[in-house]
Amino acid sequence: MSGLEGIPVHIQSAPRAVASGNTQAILAELETALQALLETGREHSIDLRSLPLLPGELDYLQHTLGTGEVRVEVDALGKSEVQETAFRGIWWVTHCNTADDVMAEFIEVSFCPDIIRAQSDDVRESLDALSVRLAGEPVSNQNCRGEGEPL
Amino acid sequence: MSGLEGIPVHIQSAPRAVASGNTQAILAELETALQALLETGREHSIDLRSLPLLPGELDYLQHTLGTGEVRVEVDALGKSEVQETAFRGIWWVTHCNTADDVMAEFIEVSFCPDIIRAQSDDVRESLDALSVRLAGEPVSNQNCRGEGEPL
Repeated sequence: MSGLEGIPVHIQSAPRAVASGNTQAILAELETALQALLETGREHSIDLRSLPLLPGELDYLQHTLGTGEVRVEVDALGKSEVQETAFRGIWWVTHCNTADDVMAEFIEVSFCPDIIRAQSDDVRESLDALSVRLAGEPVSNQNCRGEGEPL
Repeated sequence: MSGLEGIPVHIQSAPRAVASGNTQAILAELETALQALLETGREHSIDLRSLPLLPGELDYLQHTLGTGEVRVEVDALGKSEVQETAFRGIWWVTHCNTADDVMAEFIEVSFCPDIIRAQSDDVRESLDALSVRLAGEPVSNQNCRGEGEPL
């Protein structure tokens, strides 16, 4: 069991009755995806709503994967939640609409989930905005103007 | 102002009195860091507790940078919080001890904050753990054993 000591936190008990070929196939897919992530950096995503899962299988998967240390909320046209599982590199991603109904659910295999990562185009826009702000504000302790106004 | 339309959400009003050379220097450092991030991928971190900030300057900075869409909680030996600022690629990172006292505060410039990103060694351990689990569980719908038990 060497090398397994660092697996984080809560791997919870799960109901026995709902383990199935479906759930085992998903776990095997996650194993392959983790290998690919380590070897090539390739990310992988499983759309849970697209699979013919039996009642209880989703809960079984969630319990089997457990809960890790990182939890992310993204508030953009409805909330999304990203919960790290007990297996690092495997994330449980839930997207809701503005009425908080779950609209989509994914298991994502990545070093950092896509929804969290800042995209280059957005970073470039932020840089432009910050540059405009700084160029317009030759501030001293006594003379400052325009701070906090929308860009 | 083209290219600035995509800057996300709340850039709040900030108190005027505390803008200073310090805060402007930090904003300029962030501008340089965003440029470097885009050009070379190099990340940057500013340790706010190491700087001789005047009272109110931290609040001023926080208000000036605003609040973005992504908020992250990390629960490991005390909580950490990562709040995306309104400038994508700039994150406000706060580390607390187990008594919830703020112990460290950083502004980080990166596509994905380091504390969120799964590290390769940890992912490898998770892969080993998942492989061990799958190897020990030739599960069918009727015959499953050991699900949910700690690895």
